Amino acid sequence: MIKVAIIGASGYTGAELIRLLAPREDVKIVLATSKTYAGRTASGLYPNLTGPGDVEFSVYRGPEDAASADLAFVALPHGQSMETVAGLVTRGLKVIDLSGDFRLPDEAVYTAWYGVPHTQTELLKSAVYGLPEINKAAIAGASLVSNPGCYPTSAILALAPAIASHMIYSQDIIIDSISGVSGAGRTATETTHFCVRADNLTAYKVGGLHQHIPEIELYLAILGDDEVKISFTPHLGPYSRGIYTTIYADLANDLTPEEAHNLYADYYTGSIFVKIVAPGEMPELKAVLGSNGCHIGVTVDERTGRLIVVSALDNLVKGASGQAVQNMNIMFGLPEDTGLKELGVYP
Amino acid sequence: MIKVAIIGASGYTGAELIRLLAPREDVKIVLATSKTYAGRTASGLYPNLTGPGDVEFSVYRGPEDAASADLAFVALPHGQSMETVAGLVTRGLKVIDLSGDFRLPDEAVYTAWYGVPHTQTELLKSAVYGLPEINKAAIAGASLVSNPGCYPTSAILALAPAIASHMIYSQDIIIDSISGVSGAGRTATETTHFCVRADNLTAYKVGGLHQHIPEIELYLAILGDDEVKISFTPHLGPYSRGIYTTIYADLANDLTPEEAHNLYADYYTGSIFVKIVAPGEMPELKAVLGSNGCHIGVTVDERTGRLIVVSALDNLVKGASGQAVQNMNIMFGLPEDTGLKELGVYP
Amino acid sequence: MIKVAIIGASGYTGAELIRLLAPREDVKIVLATSKTYAGRTASGLYPNLTGPGDVEFSVYRGPEDAASADLAFVALPHGQSMETVAGLVTRGLKVIDLSGDFRLPDEAVYTAWYGVPHTQTELLKSAVYGLPEINKAAIAGASLVSNPGCYPTSAILALAPAIASHMIYSQDIIIDSISGVSGAGRTATETTHFCVRADNLTAYKVGGLHQHIPEIELYLAILGDDEVKISFTPHLGPYSRGIYTTIYADLANDLTPEEAHNLYADYYTGSIFVKIVAPGEMPELKAVLGSNGCHIGVTVDERTGRLIVVSALDNLVKGASGQAVQNMNIMFGLPEDTGLKELGVYP
Amino acid sequence: MIKVAIIGASGYTGAELIRLLAPREDVKIVLATSKTYAGRTASGLYPNLTGPGDVEFSVYRGPEDAASADLAFVALPHGQSMETVAGLVTRGLKVIDLSGDFRLPDEAVYTAWYGVPHTQTELLKSAVYGLPEINKAAIAGASLVSNPGCYPTSAILALAPAIASHMIYSQDIIIDSISGVSGAGRTATETTHFCVRADNLTAYKVGGLHQHIPEIELYLAILGDDEVKISFTPHLGPYSRGIYTTIYADLANDLTPEEAHNLYADYYTGSIFVKIVAPGEMPELKAVLGSNGCHIGVTVDERTGRLIVVSALDNLVKGASGQAVQNMNIMFGLPEDTGLKELGVYP
Repeated sequence: MIKVAIIGASGYTGAELIRLLAPREDVKIVLATSKTYAGRTASGLYPNLTGPGDVEFSVYRGPEDAASADLAFVALPHGQSMETVAGLVTRGLKVIDLSGDFRLPDEAVYTAWYGVPHTQTELLKSAVYGLPEINKAAIAGASLVSNPGCYPTSAILALAPAIASHMIYSQDIIIDSISGVSGAGRTATETTHFCVRADNLTAYKVGGLHQHIPEIELYLAILGDDEVKISFTPHLGPYSRGIYTTIYADLANDLTPEEAHNLYADYYTGSIFVKIVAPGEMPELKAVLGSNGCHIGVTVDERTGRLIVVSALDNLVKGASGQAVQNMNIMFGLPEDTGLKELGVYP
Repeated sequence: MIKVAIIGASGYTGAELIRLLAPREDVKIVLATSKTYAGRTASGLYPNLTGPGDVEFSVYRGPEDAASADLAFVALPHGQSMETVAGLVTRGLKVIDLSGDFRLPDEAVYTAWYGVPHTQTELLKSAVYGLPEINKAAIAGASLVSNPGCYPTSAILALAPAIASHMIYSQDIIIDSISGVSGAGRTATETTHFCVRADNLTAYKVGGLHQHIPEIELYLAILGDDEVKISFTPHLGPYSRGIYTTIYADLANDLTPEEAHNLYADYYTGSIFVKIVAPGEMPELKAVLGSNGCHIGVTVDERTGRLIVVSALDNLVKGASGQAVQNMNIMFGLPEDTGLKELGVYP
Repeated sequence: MIKVAIIGASGYTGAELIRLLAPREDVKIVLATSKTYAGRTASGLYPNLTGPGDVEFSVYRGPEDAASADLAFVALPHGQSMETVAGLVTRGLKVIDLSGDFRLPDEAVYTAWYGVPHTQTELLKSAVYGLPEINKAAIAGASLVSNPGCYPTSAILALAPAIASHMIYSQDIIIDSISGVSGAGRTATETTHFCVRADNLTAYKVGGLHQHIPEIELYLAILGDDEVKISFTPHLGPYSRGIYTTIYADLANDLTPEEAHNLYADYYTGSIFVKIVAPGEMPELKAVLGSNGCHIGVTVDERTGRLIVVSALDNLVKGASGQAVQNMNIMFGLPEDTGLKELGVYP
Repeated sequence: MIKVAIIGASGYTGAELIRLLAPREDVKIVLATSKTYAGRTASGLYPNLTGPGDVEFSVYRGPEDAASADLAFVALPHGQSMETVAGLVTRGLKVIDLSGDFRLPDEAVYTAWYGVPHTQTELLKSAVYGLPEINKAAIAGASLVSNPGCYPTSAILALAPAIASHMIYSQDIIIDSISGVSGAGRTATETTHFCVRADNLTAYKVGGLHQHIPEIELYLAILGDDEVKISFTPHLGPYSRGIYTTIYADLANDLTPEEAHNLYADYYTGSIFVKIVAPGEMPELKAVLGSNGCHIGVTVDERTGRLIVVSALDNLVKGASGQAVQNMNIMFGLPEDTGLKELGVYP
């Protein structure tokens, strides 16, 4: 029995952790905290969470509250997460942080993009980036795993085979993503109002402004051992869950669509959550909704010499809480897909 | 290991059976048939079904094709199902029929509402109605279970406590339901075109025309040992999954909302898939999407002396394939929720 | 040139008035007020309102601000509207009030349902109910028109022919309505969050609690010269605009579906915004989106002796601002459909 | 009074022509043809088209059927349009062709991308490309206007200022577009089924395969007097109407976001349907739904030296039928926005 604490359990990623963990018989949620909703149950906020695994939120007073836990998921906003993580690590818990606070090991880069200073610079250096498909061994031995951002997961998985094989020029990449509204979080704002989002699409933070840019560039650069430069445009789409990413990169050498497909399929042999769709096809976002899968399609635009890659994932599962559970499984020596076998809810 | 056959596996209820059964380690799909899509894989039609549990469709030639199976799910259209079911029962398999063919034990009533003669009138009498919350013991011992319709599941679960307790007049009931488009099936028609259904609502078969009417009336009449008469209006709503049903019935005696709530909560004690929501609240459809739950809210309109009940379920899960799996679990002596613990995918 | 003021112009009904009036060459918006958004333009809040008819919001200080106007639309929340309306009427303007403040002539009934006292009881008695299809002559001569509620418009239009002809028992009527999220207004709340509403349905104020109940009962009672009693259940549906209402009433005498259809078609001869759909068909909500139309289908459930009527309208147009413009046209002697000829945006 | 014929009136673009033209008092639809639905009314297929402007479809037998018309809109599929257009032009009618048949003046290019030979090569040379914002004078004098494709309208309007000013390298442009499902037409297919499209996104014809590519490249090349080369990826999004296009191009010289914005705003001074949104903002798709507007946002990614442009339009209005009506207005010397003043239906 793995005993887990969820710090910041009332937001969307916290609720999704509960959805994935509550039905498990080998995991017990011993603590679920929420400043705003202390005293309320998870099912009171999220009516799907009704049942025997329902939990009551409490205020988080400090790491001693999580004393009985083996592992803590920290699902706080960036900037608020780092202190809490440090306290839990010091206490000896394994920690998976779902915020952006431990994703950028260079504190100057962190501050430049997140707009706040980093107070845990030592710990920052020791965090392991929790993208299992490229970093499984390090995750298995980590005390602190920094769970990737939703957009970075969709972009890095889609580009890893191309970057690792030096198939493309790495400094001229276009990444165009469409996220479901849950990516904007639980807070009710003008932007998340149903009537504004239904039947609508909006690009935002256009022009190289999104804080996920350095994360994508850094981990791809490590993979390819070469500088990576991207233009990244996020959009909000008229649906709740999912990220659909279309990527354009200039090919370094001639390549047929079939060769590109085969290289991708080979790269992900053994990665049970990644599926390379058949040649000539492209992923459907809906295929992965509710599941931890990431579907990828790849082809070549032979007129223009470009590789085009498309990826689809559920931003709350493979893009956040499912990936965190996958990391937990790896950290505890369990089969990677324990509790994550659920197929996408389609149609 | 339970070995199952799915006859008619390429429609929505067939695909949903695969979604629910493929991840199970105690169940093996040994046969999945489709006339139209023989030779194709399930994941070729439904991209969510990719993975180790994927199956290839074959043509169904006769019960000998299912010889190695312990149980067959028959997910054929009404009228086409009865012969196939008979063949499988004769062969000695347990059968769960998801069509309407074995729901109405009186063949004359069947023909009046379904428009075709019934060719298996003996077998018809022996079929057990597969609504576990009111019929579990009979299901446990059945050879042939007739899986309820989606609308009847939503209506009977919402009315059972009131009818069984004689709280309401049973011949003056209004049932108003809104179904997701998946209820209209996989066939592409003008009615199921995205541009027609998006942002749209349409009532259909208005005026007592829907074939689920006699099914609802019959099983409620048995429960209350009294004639039941309903006006039922189905609507198609702008979403894929789910049935939301609002019911109006004249109270036989004065009753407060709290009394009604308590009576409902008591009735469903021990029914793990039914949740009576808190007094003063009403169900959210989305809370049950992808899950086998049925959420019910009940109150009293004291101005007019009416009981008002609202139920929400996923038409493809509790309204069809999840309920069929629940029935299978019961027939094989498993815990009722084996493989059905998945919580609704919300938000 | 009709000069109009819009008091409370930044909410959904205010913005819809601008959408309908800005393109007109015979109308000029001389004042558009908003406490919260003073200094901003309409197009800054509603990007569709860009163009030559764009207006800048100002703070409303009193009726003198509207001195140059011939007519004022008051689109303030109930309770806040009555004083403002009184000031404008006193100043000599024609006024169309879109709130609930002048719909219930009996102040005790108003207070019982709206929870606030009425401070303008004299004026209350003189207000004319602005449902043109049943009250056109009075509207033509009115100084103060009280624009109907969205649900009442959908219910009264659907029931008027039946009530006026005494075809049904008037004290046993069920009204079941589904509204788009815009009916909940512009304020961002947990309830209006996209992720909560998408793919969702929720009944609310169930059990005779909605403040539109006495309005529906009153104006139908006047039409039929007999008491009317309804059970009314509103729902929020997963779309922005539109109300779809299904009504059940016991027939006083036998009637065929055709007879019912003919009686309805006759009743609305000359009502250009009401369409009775063909016998055997039912309205599609989407057919009226963006338009001032109300589509109605009517049939008889011969098994149970019930009349069933279904109506569809756009809650922001025929259910609010379009109807207000229709009233303005009538008050100024213009053809009723001036500026309202736009057809529904379908598909 | 302009008398118009609509050949192929029962598809989505035909129905949208009726929606826009039926309410006009200066236009009369004298012929509306449909092979499949002859004898039925427009409102029978599209319930929004009910009203005094409703039309009955007839079979098109030849240009003599349109003898009384001044202008014919031809809304047939590509390949089927060219002969019909030729017949009508020969007969002396002005013609606006909404298919792709007359957009590519080089017959070899046409055949390469559309897969059929061109039988009207003389006429092909005389057709005028009907994008009024860049070609108004030629349209005014044209007999045959070739109405642009939906994607090309969104892409060319978004790129015209940049190409005309040589602000960007023209051979390295990425165009990423998301279309509503109505772009796939009225035919019910697996792809257009509601349950497949809802909450879904799919890229299609990826890798330089879409027939709109040469159209975009050609008309931009003319504008910039230089070769243009694009990678274009279309996607289907989960909504009925609208195209949202995000474009990436390498800047030829340094440029600030403000300079880019000003250059765009200047370019479209006087183009009443094009709105350049405020600096720092990006268009919302919903702002233009139902309207003939095209909203454009432009900025610079200074990290990577790229211009990023985003455009939004309604594919059935500015992307097809609204633009056709705009062309008709120009051809008949009317104000460009006659009958096209309707603002977007938002929220």
